[in-house]
Amino acid sequence: MVNVAVLGCGVVGSGVVEVIKKNSFSISQRAGMEIKVKWILDIRDLPDSPYADLLTKNSEDIFNDDTVSIIVETIGGVRAAYEFTKKALQSGRHVVTSNKELVAKHGPELLKMASDNKVNYLFEASVGGGIPIIRPLNQCLAANEIHGITGILNGTTNYILTQMKKEGKDFADALKEAQKNGYAEADPTADIEGHDACRKIAILSSIAYNEYVNCENIYTEGISKLTVTDMLYAEKMNSTIKLIGISKRVGNKVYARVSPAMIRKDHPLANVEDVFNAIVVKGDAIGEAMFYGRGAGKLPTASAVVADIIDIVKHTGMYGNNIWERKSYDNLINSGENDIGFFVRVKVRNSEEAKKFISRSLGQVEFISLNKPGLQDELAFVTAKEKEGPMLEKIKVLGTIASIKEVVSIIRIEEE
Amino acid sequence: MVNVAVLGCGVVGSGVVEVIKKNSFSISQRAGMEIKVKWILDIRDLPDSPYADLLTKNSEDIFNDDTVSIIVETIGGVRAAYEFTKKALQSGRHVVTSNKELVAKHGPELLKMASDNKVNYLFEASVGGGIPIIRPLNQCLAANEIHGITGILNGTTNYILTQMKKEGKDFADALKEAQKNGYAEADPTADIEGHDACRKIAILSSIAYNEYVNCENIYTEGISKLTVTDMLYAEKMNSTIKLIGISKRVGNKVYARVSPAMIRKDHPLANVEDVFNAIVVKGDAIGEAMFYGRGAGKLPTASAVVADIIDIVKHTGMYGNNIWERKSYDNLINSGENDIGFFVRVKVRNSEEAKKFISRSLGQVEFISLNKPGLQDELAFVTAKEKEGPMLEKIKVLGTIASIKEVVSIIRIEEE
Repeated sequence: MVNVAVLGCGVVGSGVVEVIKKNSFSISQRAGMEIKVKWILDIRDLPDSPYADLLTKNSEDIFNDDTVSIIVETIGGVRAAYEFTKKALQSGRHVVTSNKELVAKHGPELLKMASDNKVNYLFEASVGGGIPIIRPLNQCLAANEIHGITGILNGTTNYILTQMKKEGKDFADALKEAQKNGYAEADPTADIEGHDACRKIAILSSIAYNEYVNCENIYTEGISKLTVTDMLYAEKMNSTIKLIGISKRVGNKVYARVSPAMIRKDHPLANVEDVFNAIVVKGDAIGEAMFYGRGAGKLPTASAVVADIIDIVKHTGMYGNNIWERKSYDNLINSGENDIGFFVRVKVRNSEEAKKFISRSLGQVEFISLNKPGLQDELAFVTAKEKEGPMLEKIKVLGTIASIKEVVSIIRIEEE
Repeated sequence: MVNVAVLGCGVVGSGVVEVIKKNSFSISQRAGMEIKVKWILDIRDLPDSPYADLLTKNSEDIFNDDTVSIIVETIGGVRAAYEFTKKALQSGRHVVTSNKELVAKHGPELLKMASDNKVNYLFEASVGGGIPIIRPLNQCLAANEIHGITGILNGTTNYILTQMKKEGKDFADALKEAQKNGYAEADPTADIEGHDACRKIAILSSIAYNEYVNCENIYTEGISKLTVTDMLYAEKMNSTIKLIGISKRVGNKVYARVSPAMIRKDHPLANVEDVFNAIVVKGDAIGEAMFYGRGAGKLPTASAVVADIIDIVKHTGMYGNNIWERKSYDNLINSGENDIGFFVRVKVRNSEEAKKFISRSLGQVEFISLNKPGLQDELAFVTAKEKEGPMLEKIKVLGTIASIKEVVSIIRIEEE
């Protein structure tokens, strides 16, 4: 029998306990041993919890219990979670987590610590909720050199964008709808500003390229400035707007970004709607593979945590953490160096003058017009694919000339 | 260092050697040990092979070489492949294969033999080519009770159906096109009649439900009778026709089938085109997850074989085959017991009479008409969802009445 302690009895933590109880027979069969939740740590009184008998507020109850060999950390954040994780690893216990922030920020240190203590630090649930992606990247695609990863990595923003596109809701209403349905938190900043997706692309990239990609250095832009009009233009261009996390190998460096992007409707990610997530991985042998499913939620995420627990139990005595090498230099290329095309909307005072200026200053552009009232005073166009930095400079200049009132939208066009 | 012998230097076998050579550095890094191909067995003279120095025609060279611990079986079929696999397992060597026919037919015996000899028998490459699906099912979704699997499991037929739909080619021309492009073999029977997909759904089901599902007992229907007109009706019904492999738990039994089916355009499999494969897995915790990628081809399939090799090397001393329990009773439910709706086309002598008879005998049906010349003498309709057996009987009777000339199409409507 293997005893597990769950730190944090929130949505994911209580889901882990539920899945282990519910499927205990088949889980034991697959793990080759019975798995039991012995402790649940939570600072709150939870008198109504069905697991009240397992609850403790004192972490020492767990750390002093030598029969506990696996710790599930579902506290979140980088404070208590960080301290408890270090303590668990140093005490020779395996740790399984869904905490993307902690993995993205302290992954190299915690993986090294796990390896030094001959235990596992596993985090399948940190990316893509229940979608198997970390283990496939680590194991199933191990024969490949990974070239790139493109993903819809955040369910909240994908739900909001789907509402905007399908129901014509504006961003604020779609956000409220997401909050009402429990898909967005009261403070939605981490989701809508792209920070959550950024941590996830950082984790995936660190695994894929076998070196630490620091989320703090990744260019990140959220979805709060997008409008329904942008969506209508996308539709006209046979495209759709998604919050995309992307990274790729460029020489011995890595390019990574999180931003809204237009993708063509035949892109594998174009039909990923609502709270679903999907991740496309490109490898030299496999070509493209895509992994799709619910990117969040209690039971899907718990399913991934429990899969990690089973893996540890099944391979007792084995540990196989990849250490994420920290490069001595900044291993991310400057985002301005990336070649990309932009979709741009400007409000104009003099359309003809503005058109002339745009063509002169940005080179070849393709103007797009939408049959919709209220857009007489605007021009929309797509630029050629060029280095992002200089092109963005030129686009910003548009806002300073006499014939143009302001630049209202700048959206990348992603072809990868 | 780990020595590997590859049996059969065809498309997949030579791909395995190529991938191991090409990515040797990162593969060694991930496996924790150098992996070397020491022997390649092939009965042919292959003087132009870049691996001529590794070739032997004598299997004893390999079985007498105690330094070879992993055998890759890429011979195909169930004769030499079966004998060599048994010999390898009994000699205490791990076996990795892409041979779906062998796994589907002799999986229980070979898995038991592997377990008895404390070695692994792994076959990630047998389903979905390079798509990671066997390992995710076994490991990543281990916390789930799997309810069902629905997949596009054969790239050849999916290419043909895509050509018929997009280019309006008839079946024979689309097949020729597939053969010209190397997507279909000279004898395409196993693909177009659904046998290949059937072996794959049998393998996936055996893993998912942890009991042997015998491919010989699975109802299997191919795509050779489908016409472009069927595709046009599907389009009108906001659907698309795919060759679907499906299985689901029904009580303590399993329902499984391979057949063409209409699926709605918002089904996750509807946009899987050309030679791509995709598999939707439904679990009680994860909900739906989908795995998508190239279902065949030299390097994708080799990528899956090599991932299995790396897994074995990384976990030296471990073996973890699931034994597929053989039920003492037939564990498949009779396909006639499954509830399903049908799309039906009949050629009529008297349209009004035929309509009356159809409504009287089949109960509630929905007639569908297509604005296309040459279809004046036909009726097309969708039946209610009922038990497949009795409904098919009633549909067949239609061909025997005076007002109807013949039944030209019977296509299942799949909602799962």
